[in-house]
Amino acid sequence: MDKSPLAIGVFDSGMGGLSVLRALHKALPHESFIYLGDTARLPYGTKSPDTVQQYAVQMARILVECRIKALVIACNTATTAALPHLRTMLPDMPVLGVVSPGAAAAVAATQNRRLMVLATETTIASQAYQRLINAQIPDAIISSRACSVLVALAEEGMVDNTIARAALQHYLSDIVDEDTLLLGCTHFPVFKSLLSTLLPQHVRIVDSAEATATALQTLLLKEGLLNTAISHSMRYLVTDSVNRFQKVGEIFLGEPLNLSDIELVNAC
Amino acid sequence: MDKSPLAIGVFDSGMGGLSVLRALHKALPHESFIYLGDTARLPYGTKSPDTVQQYAVQMARILVECRIKALVIACNTATTAALPHLRTMLPDMPVLGVVSPGAAAAVAATQNRRLMVLATETTIASQAYQRLINAQIPDAIISSRACSVLVALAEEGMVDNTIARAALQHYLSDIVDEDTLLLGCTHFPVFKSLLSTLLPQHVRIVDSAEATATALQTLLLKEGLLNTAISHSMRYLVTDSVNRFQKVGEIFLGEPLNLSDIELVNAC
Repeated sequence: MDKSPLAIGVFDSGMGGLSVLRALHKALPHESFIYLGDTARLPYGTKSPDTVQQYAVQMARILVECRIKALVIACNTATTAALPHLRTMLPDMPVLGVVSPGAAAAVAATQNRRLMVLATETTIASQAYQRLINAQIPDAIISSRACSVLVALAEEGMVDNTIARAALQHYLSDIVDEDTLLLGCTHFPVFKSLLSTLLPQHVRIVDSAEATATALQTLLLKEGLLNTAISHSMRYLVTDSVNRFQKVGEIFLGEPLNLSDIELVNAC
Repeated sequence: MDKSPLAIGVFDSGMGGLSVLRALHKALPHESFIYLGDTARLPYGTKSPDTVQQYAVQMARILVECRIKALVIACNTATTAALPHLRTMLPDMPVLGVVSPGAAAAVAATQNRRLMVLATETTIASQAYQRLINAQIPDAIISSRACSVLVALAEEGMVDNTIARAALQHYLSDIVDEDTLLLGCTHFPVFKSLLSTLLPQHVRIVDSAEATATALQTLLLKEGLLNTAISHSMRYLVTDSVNRFQKVGEIFLGEPLNLSDIELVNAC
């Protein structure tokens, strides 16, 4: 069967993964995407790895039922909690997370081998970034900040107000020698503009969206799955309120969302 | 059957309801309580009424299976979304929410009939407080602020730092003539100390915990359900990580929690 006209499935706990979808769509404009946001159970970042894995399996099943050719976990927490399990569950499908591409981008960016990772509580606890970066640069010094409150602020659209500023200043209070700030949560790129005004000039901000897009492109090419058809589409599925997703989603997607493109599905 | 030795079931989306449990236990020291926190799906306050009602039904079923004599919804969002439905579902059991007691406390507190309600997005959208207060004081002027970010801050234990201060200042920026501030979310009493430093001196802070305890006492007495036994107990059930519940829970409970008193249960 020629799988190229099939869509690529992308999921996240809510709207954050739309920042990844934006990069995927830009890099692969001829591909169709089905994005699934688990808005009924967001956020994932303060929940246990077992619970997040259970949710991720449910999300993957919904997308597989939509006939997809590849799966992207557009959520750092779900990647750390469920990537190996989903690869075992779906042996015939390319499954890609955002953590390895993000770590690779951070490794490429640092000059002085001192990095700071901002991520959710569960991602930080997994030490996934630390392991992946140290595998490439054994003497890299990596400081980590669990900053789950940023997820709530992003999901509220508060990306450049006094609360967001206080939160970022709080989390970055002890940044000193680091030359690379890795945004280890797909909700955080919306703070880039405010971050650039708060960080010392020599700090490079890295996120996993573009690196994930490049990795997906390479993978689709290798597997002969790149779309050759002219038509492509974008569908959005959510496990709770389509209205809220439409309203908040465009902050992450960077363009308006049509209510008619968003469908409500059952989480489990 | 003498139901008096049975426990009282109390549920919330997570830890916030422990602020209510604290007041219930203080007012009714001879009663046994089973507290259930739906930590696998928290927060409720940004989710749709349909989804919150579905979760509330699942929480009520878990508690009913534990053989309880009364049910307290220690969450404003769940009260607005599910109280009538749960009363229909459990016709033989007293079911109490926190919204009516909270509204009554606010009505009793205000002198100038100008009130401000801080609550979650879904509670504010329900207009439940507005309706209940205006039913008692038709010319009361009620301003409302949806401040879901405070839930995330409370669940992180950030109740008196620069972020909490910025958030409260943001939400209270246009308080002028109001003489009563109603905390319409069971997560918010942990900010009372910081709030009292930020508010004009004439503003009274009201929450529903004590009023709910008084209402429960009256209800148990009326139904002949007050405990006459000497022994009583406290059990905690959670739908995700017992460790996180123990760590964060004591902020709301005001006393240490024993890990051995906390059990993990399946949400659905």
